[in-house]
Amino acid sequence: MSEPLILYEYAPSGNCYKIRLTAALLGLPLARRHYDIMRGETRTPDFLAHVNANGRIPVLQIGERFLPESNAACFWLATGSALIPDDRFDRADMLRWMFWEQYNHEPNIATLRFWLAFVGEAALTDAQRGQIAGKRAAGEAALDLMAAELDRRDWLVGATPSLADICLFAYTHVADAGGFDLGGWPAILRWIDRVKALPGYIPITD
Amino acid sequence: MSEPLILYEYAPSGNCYKIRLTAALLGLPLARRHYDIMRGETRTPDFLAHVNANGRIPVLQIGERFLPESNAACFWLATGSALIPDDRFDRADMLRWMFWEQYNHEPNIATLRFWLAFVGEAALTDAQRGQIAGKRAAGEAALDLMAAELDRRDWLVGATPSLADICLFAYTHVADAGGFDLGGWPAILRWIDRVKALPGYIPITD
Repeated sequence: MSEPLILYEYAPSGNCYKIRLTAALLGLPLARRHYDIMRGETRTPDFLAHVNANGRIPVLQIGERFLPESNAACFWLATGSALIPDDRFDRADMLRWMFWEQYNHEPNIATLRFWLAFVGEAALTDAQRGQIAGKRAAGEAALDLMAAELDRRDWLVGATPSLADICLFAYTHVADAGGFDLGGWPAILRWIDRVKALPGYIPITD
Repeated sequence: MSEPLILYEYAPSGNCYKIRLTAALLGLPLARRHYDIMRGETRTPDFLAHVNANGRIPVLQIGERFLPESNAACFWLATGSALIPDDRFDRADMLRWMFWEQYNHEPNIATLRFWLAFVGEAALTDAQRGQIAGKRAAGEAALDLMAAELDRRDWLVGATPSLADICLFAYTHVADAGGFDLGGWPAILRWIDRVKALPGYIPITD
């Protein structure tokens, strides 16, 4: 690994934490640059022109190149490691969970955490407030789906941890901040303990 | 390729079309089973138990196994083909566009097409109607981002078409049905023509 790696991030974001956790599990050093999304620091002309035209963190800088999207950055970091299965079906199935995370899990579980624990319910727009009940139900359905799978197996894909586990762990283990009581999904709590026991594990607060 | 491939789909869905288009470009035969999502046919106990616990199409059946999530199914199909770059950065960058598609593009551009051209504006809930303006703005921003890239290059990743192009083509080329006038993004129109000229191309109506 010769190219320096720099993570452009807002540290409490689960999407940023995924990348730090993947790098930590793989023993890869990562420099970090903080941007305060609450103050619009990823929407400045400089950020849009040089880091990410989409105005979002995280972005992983690899040498001179920039890679947005948390799950893509994890994929780059883990290429060639045991966190990405060699088997053709299992690799696609890992990506299945990662796409599902971005479509069915993150927009509900992460968004409610952001709205309720970071923005604050009183500061939400009417359009946001009107979506809370739908996101609550969809987030609970996402946790049900994960729990049904984790009731049968230790890890989401194959017999060992993969990026599917790391990427879903990020927002699942802090879902209580969005009002989800994980006590209702004991299979998820046991899986969280397994992830936390992985060699190299770091918490989201690191 | 010895295992039979079966696509569980609702044919007008762009997510289902992605898989058909990928298979067509690669010359892979695909059996098809139709489910009418307007009549709830993917939420039956049988579908949830045997095809996809998430109650959604598309699902790709590969032999005895089931793979949900359109972009994961495309990845499985294209494994080992030129539609997935060999280069480590380019492969992750392709996934970047595919994750971006599911997070920033599909929930806005595909959802407005579904709401306006399939459900009908009069049948929307108040919560849905309250999201139209936000999804319109976010969809336009997504098209702006694609157009800025396609103004500089023929394909989204590297010098040849990849799954990033196929997966983004699916809902972009029918965005007019959701009220987006692509005439405002000429670089996207030229890229649509390039995709349509690929050997093996099939339209969404096939």
